[in-house]
Amino acid sequence: MFLTIGELINSTRDEVKQALKEKDEDLIRKLARDQAETGADVIDLNAGESMEDEQKDMDWLIDLVEDEIEDVRICIDTPDPEVLEFALEKVENKPVINSISNEADKKQAREVASGYDAEIIGLAMGEEGMPETVEDRLNETEALLKKCDKLGIDKDNLYIDVIAMTIGSNQEQGQYVIDSVSRIKEEFGVKTNIGLSNMSFGLPDRPLINRTVFAMLLEAGLDAALIDPTDKAMMDTLKAAEALLGADKNCLNYLKYKRSC
Amino acid sequence: MFLTIGELINSTRDEVKQALKEKDEDLIRKLARDQAETGADVIDLNAGESMEDEQKDMDWLIDLVEDEIEDVRICIDTPDPEVLEFALEKVENKPVINSISNEADKKQAREVASGYDAEIIGLAMGEEGMPETVEDRLNETEALLKKCDKLGIDKDNLYIDVIAMTIGSNQEQGQYVIDSVSRIKEEFGVKTNIGLSNMSFGLPDRPLINRTVFAMLLEAGLDAALIDPTDKAMMDTLKAAEALLGADKNCLNYLKYKRSC
Repeated sequence: MFLTIGELINSTRDEVKQALKEKDEDLIRKLARDQAETGADVIDLNAGESMEDEQKDMDWLIDLVEDEIEDVRICIDTPDPEVLEFALEKVENKPVINSISNEADKKQAREVASGYDAEIIGLAMGEEGMPETVEDRLNETEALLKKCDKLGIDKDNLYIDVIAMTIGSNQEQGQYVIDSVSRIKEEFGVKTNIGLSNMSFGLPDRPLINRTVFAMLLEAGLDAALIDPTDKAMMDTLKAAEALLGADKNCLNYLKYKRSC
Repeated sequence: MFLTIGELINSTRDEVKQALKEKDEDLIRKLARDQAETGADVIDLNAGESMEDEQKDMDWLIDLVEDEIEDVRICIDTPDPEVLEFALEKVENKPVINSISNEADKKQAREVASGYDAEIIGLAMGEEGMPETVEDRLNETEALLKKCDKLGIDKDNLYIDVIAMTIGSNQEQGQYVIDSVSRIKEEFGVKTNIGLSNMSFGLPDRPLINRTVFAMLLEAGLDAALIDPTDKAMMDTLKAAEALLGADKNCLNYLKYKRSC
């Protein structure tokens, strides 16, 4: 089952930053509801732009979103290990942690993550800086898996994030991320994730680039992604891909989805 | 360079069948122009439904389309080797032949095709009937390449058609055709083609299935396809895929395409 993580409640987005400042409950509730209704399995919550108020704002976001959506799963998106621990203690259902990596200053986050029953996004980066090639991503994955293993993190709870970079400034990144998905799965038997919209940064008609690379990544075996589920073309692509790749027996799910559109 | 073959002037389509009967020049000219303007590199012409009048109608179609579109390339789509030879003698520019195969009754077509400077679509079917699995398609390709080699057909002029079948009745065909594209290219070093819209037969929102599998097939290395280029989502997908797969340096072609939309 593919894991759709709704990316819209992110403080780097202007409307969310503003909503956090003004404690605009309606906007946050609407973003949560719209994403849940269009197909998000997990709702990402990021209050990083609130700086010293991050924990307070994360607290507020979790309360709101858990109140708005029954049985919601939260994706805790923070660079601060203390905010992470706070949120891990607070959420009702098994969360997703976004994210850990090989970066030296992520040691505390890795340790916190290892202490909870959570799914964890592990970025394929850090030990040697940002990855460039497929090989770089494989090396970072191997290093991260070793660290996770030492901490007793169950590999089945991990999603290796292949690190999306825009093709606008580096043409090779498209093929690199697609090949990274298939090779990480093949060589390490671990699930994969991507923050998909980064692929199209700086290009016109970003939804077109996003839906096209999404189809390619799904064919390569992608297991999860941070996307905007209210972008109908993205969910259309997911449902069509599941039918095309045999994951949707007799296309029944596709037929049901199309009847509901 | 991907080869886009415009599929709309086909006598199995009602409006074309009618136009052939009534010699409706305007409709044929419009279909040719619309396809050329939206990005067809080659215009497929099929008058097969005209039965005993097929050659006469093919003659009429070629005259019209060559008059309407400057320097047009024609894809000669006929089951009749005599119509094929007639059209090969007639067309102005290097044509595409649609198609030859391993079928016993295609012997004459294979011989005719070998006598002209043309690109040739070779269906991966016939010796053992219709293919089911990837293995079947590889076996048919191998057999067809042998026959073509004996006839002196240049492998560089060949496009092996992977035989699209609807996923509506057989869920495995999606993955089979995608894997067939990559494996035929890898094992035989020959180009590939598909009659793409067959994939979605019988399903709702066929354009969605078509554009999604098109992205996957392009990632697998597809070299040519019969598509409807006036379906904007298809040409959008092609341009985005070329940018994503590094075939469009610095995305310049994508940027130009988007400015023209």
